[in-house]
Amino acid sequence: MERFNRIIEIDEKNFQAVVEPGVITQVFQEEVEKYGLFYPVDPASRGSCFIGGNLAECSGGPRALKYGVTRDYVLALEFVTPTGEIISNGARTIKNVTGYNLAQLIIGSEGTLGVITKIIFKLISLPKFRKLLLIPFDSIDNCISSVAEFFTSGITPSALEFLEKSAVKAAETQLNKKYPVSDAEAQLFIEVDGNYEEALNNDVQKIAEVAEKFGAIDIILAEDRQKMDDIWELRRGTGDAVKSISTYKEEDTVVPRNKMPALIKGVKEISSRYGIRSICYGHAGDGNVHVNILKDKLSDKEWNDRIDDAIREIFNLTISLGGTLSGEHGIGYSQKNYLSIALGNSEIQLMKDIKRTFDPNNILNPGKIFPD
Amino acid sequence: MERFNRIIEIDEKNFQAVVEPGVITQVFQEEVEKYGLFYPVDPASRGSCFIGGNLAECSGGPRALKYGVTRDYVLALEFVTPTGEIISNGARTIKNVTGYNLAQLIIGSEGTLGVITKIIFKLISLPKFRKLLLIPFDSIDNCISSVAEFFTSGITPSALEFLEKSAVKAAETQLNKKYPVSDAEAQLFIEVDGNYEEALNNDVQKIAEVAEKFGAIDIILAEDRQKMDDIWELRRGTGDAVKSISTYKEEDTVVPRNKMPALIKGVKEISSRYGIRSICYGHAGDGNVHVNILKDKLSDKEWNDRIDDAIREIFNLTISLGGTLSGEHGIGYSQKNYLSIALGNSEIQLMKDIKRTFDPNNILNPGKIFPD
Repeated sequence: MERFNRIIEIDEKNFQAVVEPGVITQVFQEEVEKYGLFYPVDPASRGSCFIGGNLAECSGGPRALKYGVTRDYVLALEFVTPTGEIISNGARTIKNVTGYNLAQLIIGSEGTLGVITKIIFKLISLPKFRKLLLIPFDSIDNCISSVAEFFTSGITPSALEFLEKSAVKAAETQLNKKYPVSDAEAQLFIEVDGNYEEALNNDVQKIAEVAEKFGAIDIILAEDRQKMDDIWELRRGTGDAVKSISTYKEEDTVVPRNKMPALIKGVKEISSRYGIRSICYGHAGDGNVHVNILKDKLSDKEWNDRIDDAIREIFNLTISLGGTLSGEHGIGYSQKNYLSIALGNSEIQLMKDIKRTFDPNNILNPGKIFPD
Repeated sequence: MERFNRIIEIDEKNFQAVVEPGVITQVFQEEVEKYGLFYPVDPASRGSCFIGGNLAECSGGPRALKYGVTRDYVLALEFVTPTGEIISNGARTIKNVTGYNLAQLIIGSEGTLGVITKIIFKLISLPKFRKLLLIPFDSIDNCISSVAEFFTSGITPSALEFLEKSAVKAAETQLNKKYPVSDAEAQLFIEVDGNYEEALNNDVQKIAEVAEKFGAIDIILAEDRQKMDDIWELRRGTGDAVKSISTYKEEDTVVPRNKMPALIKGVKEISSRYGIRSICYGHAGDGNVHVNILKDKLSDKEWNDRIDDAIREIFNLTISLGGTLSGEHGIGYSQKNYLSIALGNSEIQLMKDIKRTFDPNNILNPGKIFPD
């Protein structure tokens, strides 16, 4: 069986790579790093997810705030249409306005428009240095309110992650490891990278100043690779750890950065009103908050009676804050009946018309994305 | 009459702006700079072109090599479909996988799919410092062969422009100004930017080393704003200056960076074989070479007999080098009969099907992009 898992070419002169969709994201990242190159898109599942899936869902991860998402690195795509045509769209160039950009339409279409068979990526130069700060706070609100100010102070972090205490605790239990300050109400991970260490030292200084202004309990700096990897392991394990607690429903809400305090406050108010526990963590630097709603000891009936209305309220709030339903996970089956909270009828109709144009027999991922 | 030329909002907390399509690009750039923000897309025509047109053609310009093109800065679009529906696609977020990304399909579609009425842009932090190097060479080949090596040496310039001597001369005549080294066979403009001046000084040092290795005649450094503006004025005036020489046909070829020596050598060989003069200049850092073919003193018959075959040969060469027909100007009317050199039949057919889905009555820019 053809596995489509080859890295066909790494073009170190032009900072490009030709890849098949079955390559594991981390394998691709590590291979290009051997050439001093960087594929920055870094989903938490990078050790097991496929590059093709990353395109289908337009994966983001913690570095999107500085480096963008999957679509920002795709120059060209080969894909097979549902009617059996093989299409190569794009070129090995950063600029291209030669007919419609079909690649950009396919990316994020969740496998509904075509089967990706080859990808040409743009790569960038691997930054020489990075430094990671772990910053505990004694209140969620102080923690999350600081986020926008790191940016307005002139810093562009390469990652800025947020976790509330219950997410921290879940990861500690699951991974049998401890955070340096384990009992803080919330924590930020802030990473900076670049080619000049002195510049990063200046960034670290500025970050510390902003964090102190918002009442940070401590500021833990990790500079060596091993220490940074240890801390990131805790962050990467958070999703699975939270999901292992109980039956859950995970939302992938995303709002403008400075609306996160309002989003998280609203989520807590809504979940408390419905008697459901929520655990929030995620990519605070780009406003992408993963809201996990847990069944815990609710009966099936209680859970089923409450969950749909609670999610609708959370999504209505998200939209009212200028955000949307999904930042990087997509709609799939589980969110499709909420799609019309975010999109108008004529917009959904136009998308369905596009789906029909590509796939008149509705054979690719039928029933996904669009409401019943 | 509604002019749709308002900058509706600059959101300095979230680094975003809401803009109508009739805003002049330079007006928008200068407005966001007042807030310490940066809209990097910088077409040479920025003083007269509209943001809406920049979206329609996915404008690039000299900074694409570091900062990307128009599509990389669009978070959301409001547009009117040819059947009269008003659609708001996207959100005020960097990440978004909530249905198909219609905005990315509209961008670069040359006004054939919808009428853009509002744009939400992502902005970035304005770099504090920039430095410009002007580097004359005594051979086109040495000059253009150096380009890929600046990148592999670890530099990411914010602009890297190439001009051959006849383009330099045309600009000097038209603007009544002189280049510091006026008789060189070719010149590079290399700009670097960032927040740490010492880092830029290191970049300048490395650039000089690479340039010397490729036989640069001189290295002229401009650090103060006025001197940089003067040099950039010569570069920005080049397009109009070349076009004022004679009846012309301009191609917007784009290839991978390290294929530019082969492209330019091929263009010279082809134009010489057809007895037609060519003048090349452009955005060497991203492989986007503007090839101007001049009628000069050819008779109408000679020009008409030769031009089509010459262009076909140039485009075939471009495609064979992994490039494509247009990097930032689009296809429009003038290139549409060459489209099938770049795209396969089934790809063109799929694009036409999409056009029909959006515009069943073919009322928006009919006759553009697709071959007769």
